[in-house]
Order: sequence, then C-alpha cells, then structure tokens
Amino acid sequence: MTYCVGLLLKAGIVLLSDTRTNAGMDNISTYRKQFLFEEPGERVIAIMTAGNLSVTQTTLARLREAIDGPDDQAHRSIMHAHSMLQVAEIIGATLAEVRQSVDEKMAGPGQGAAASMIVAGQRRGGDMRLFLVYSEGNFIEATEDTPFLQIGEHKYGKPILDRVVRPETTLADARKAVLLSMDSTLRSNLSVGMPLDLCVIERDQCRIGQQTRIEAGDQVFGAMSQAWSNALRDAFQTIEI
Amino acid sequence: MTYCVGLLLKAGIVLLSDTRTNAGMDNISTYRKQFLFEEPGERVIAIMTAGNLSVTQTTLARLREAIDGPDDQAHRSIMHAHSMLQVAEIIGATLAEVRQSVDEKMAGPGQGAAASMIVAGQRRGGDMRLFLVYSEGNFIEATEDTPFLQIGEHKYGKPILDRVVRPETTLADARKAVLLSMDSTLRSNLSVGMPLDLCVIERDQCRIGQQTRIEAGDQVFGAMSQAWSNALRDAFQTIEI
Repeated sequence: MTYCVGLLLKAGIVLLSDTRTNAGMDNISTYRKQFLFEEPGERVIAIMTAGNLSVTQTTLARLREAIDGPDDQAHRSIMHAHSMLQVAEIIGATLAEVRQSVDEKMAGPGQGAAASMIVAGQRRGGDMRLFLVYSEGNFIEATEDTPFLQIGEHKYGKPILDRVVRPETTLADARKAVLLSMDSTLRSNLSVGMPLDLCVIERDQCRIGQQTRIEAGDQVFGAMSQAWSNALRDAFQTIEI
Repeated sequence: MTYCVGLLLKAGIVLLSDTRTNAGMDNISTYRKQFLFEEPGERVIAIMTAGNLSVTQTTLARLREAIDGPDDQAHRSIMHAHSMLQVAEIIGATLAEVRQSVDEKMAGPGQGAAASMIVAGQRRGGDMRLFLVYSEGNFIEATEDTPFLQIGEHKYGKPILDRVVRPETTLADARKAVLLSMDSTLRSNLSVGMPLDLCVIERDQCRIGQQTRIEAGDQVFGAMSQAWSNALRDAFQTIEI
C-alpha cells in the first residue's frame, strides 16, 4: 500500500508520501511516489500517487512525454495548462486512459488496476489548489472546510489531522502534523514504509520551497517519533475517567 | 459500520462496542452489539458483533435457543461448553452456518453477508481468553504479544492501542485506552456512533464486574474527549522538528 497526504493552507501546500510498494507480502520495493514539476516563479505542480504501480508509472511517463513532446501535443502538457483545474483534468484523463487499458489486460476475477493521485500546485496569477484524482479521472478538491486530502492507507493517520489541521495552520506546524500522521501509519501498518518524501510550497512563490527525503535511520524523525510516543503516553496519564 | 475492541490483560478483560448500524447512509439505527452471558462465579462469556446485522442477530438467536433448549441440544450451548475454546468453536460453527445460508439468499454481485465476532470470557478453573471469530467460523486468539483484538472500523483507533496497551496495563488504564480509541474512531468515521457499551471482567471472578452504557450526551465521556483533544494539541505543540 501507500500513504500520501497533502495539506492546502493559507500559507501554502505541504505534501508527504512514503515509498513502499508491494506486489504480495514477499515482493516489497521502494519507489518514489512524489513527483515535482516547476518553472520557478511561473508554475509549480506536485503529484503523489497510490495504487497499481504499472498504472501510476505509465501515467507519469505519458505526462512527461507530453511535456517534452512536440508542440502539437501541448494541449496535453501540464506545463502548458492555463490553470490548475486544467492540470487536474489532463492528469485525470491520462490516468483514466491508462487505467482502462491496464484493466482490460487484467480481466481475471478480483483484479482491478485502481490508482489515485493527489495533484497540487499553483500557476502565477492563479489560486493554489489541491486535488484528489480518482482512477476514473474525476476529482475532488480541498477546501477551507476540508484542508487536507489523503490517498492509500489513510485511516491510521487521520485522527491527528482532524484534530490539528486548519487553513490557518503554519507551514512549520503543518510539516509536523503530516510527519506525525505518517508516524502513526508507519507504526500500525507494515505496507507503508520509509524513506519519506516531503515537499513544502509557499503560497504565491510558484516554486518548490523545500524538498526533503527522510531516510529510514533519520535521527530527527526518530527523535520526533519517540518524543510523540512519550508525549502521548504522558497525555494518556493526565486524562481522568 | 461498527467498532468493537477487546483487551485481554493480566488483570482481566475490557470490552467496548458502539451501537450504530446502517443499511445505506439514509437508514441508520441503534443496535446493541455486546451480549453478555453469565453464571456468576462459574462462567462468564461476552460476545461483540460486527458486520451483516441479519447474520449476527440470527447467530445470537440460535446461540440463545441452544442455551434455553432441551438437553439434547446441550452440546451446542455455550453455557454448557467445557472450555472457552469450545465456546469459540460453537460460536464459529453457528456463525459460519448462518452466514452461509444468508449468503445463498444474497446471490447478487458484490453482495456478501460477512460478519465477525469478538468472544471473551472465562470458565471457573480455566484461562481467560479472547477470540476473534471470522465469518467462516475459524478464529484467532489474543496473546501476550497482541493483547487486543478489534472488529469493524479498527484503523482509526489502533495507534493509541499500539502505544499504550500491554498485558500489564491496569483495568482502569485499559478502560481509558478503549474509550480514547473509540473517541478517535467516532471523530473520524460517521458510521460508528454513540451510545457505547462497556464491559469489564476481572480475572478469575467469572462474573461481569462492570457493565455500562454510555449515552450520547454523557458528560464524563464528553469531558474525557475534550481533555484528550486538549492534551493532544498541547503534546503537538511540545514536539520539535
């Protein structure tokens, strides 16, 4: 499985993804699930992927081909799209097309090449937006009421987000919130694994502010994880019922 | 959906279940999912249910009929079983039988009358045991390494249990842990709802120690929920990364 989470805040966007991919319990690999595209100052687009790896890889490959391709393919290039809405539409159409073609090859019972993506970014002069694109190509968007979107193993890490994430949350707190949300998921579900990819995009900068890979033995992440465990246990002791 | 959790500790057993049942989003009802059977000092058995309501109700009805029935049905009565293992086997066999017969009536695609149960208890002179019985009638058992079992919407409430529940946990802390685990689930998932049924069985008492229904407006539960929110937010502020 996978866990990816994206936050859309007044201050910007924060994205975090794991890298574990498995085809069965005995076939586990590491694959990046966070892909960044930018023309600094002009536009920035981030994509995070969950689901069938052949679908997500082929979708990304086609998106890249359209970016690098000849001018007559420009209408399929996310780097030429007029707005983030159009970016989401291009990605949705590409994903749906790839999923359908893979689905047809996997005609066995119980099979299904589902995949989903989180798409975030901003074009100069436009709004910052955060979308969740489904297998079928349709999508939903984060709003003030629901400032975060998740794909993959989303349940373990949702309670902490429900409690602390608001549109006004600072980027530093948002970074902490997604890392703690991931920490809860890592502890409870083996199919989500280190290393992690973290990306921060400040509003109206139209460029990647911070992009970090957090490796398995990362001491800062380990210390945070331990501190959170201790803080939770202390908090638990203070509760009376 | 449903959320039920059972803890098997050195000090005894703690069980908590919600009561929300839904057949579609617009057909929501309240049904007890925790059923207690006791012959005080001799044996105590608790059953919690998740899944298809017609399956779980019919299974319970058949178990009750076997208890009240004529002596030639005694081998199917959980109140006559020689051990908790035999209790789990009787419940598993009954559940599998009912599920299969309902399944046959629901032959549509994507249908399926799945249900599962947590079975806990003790017979005088025997061990305290906690089982998770699957639709097919097979079961697993809680151990020292994994002292808790969950059915239904189990993911939201798992991180807190992973962090605080050990076989040595006191009954008071265990009660708190299951209530906080439920609180996280209630906040993140609409299909789990108040009131809650809480049951505590002390080791070797072979009787129900405490049985409480916590209603929707319960002030103590509300205060705990609020205190936990505040404690989590405070803990969040103390973490540095």
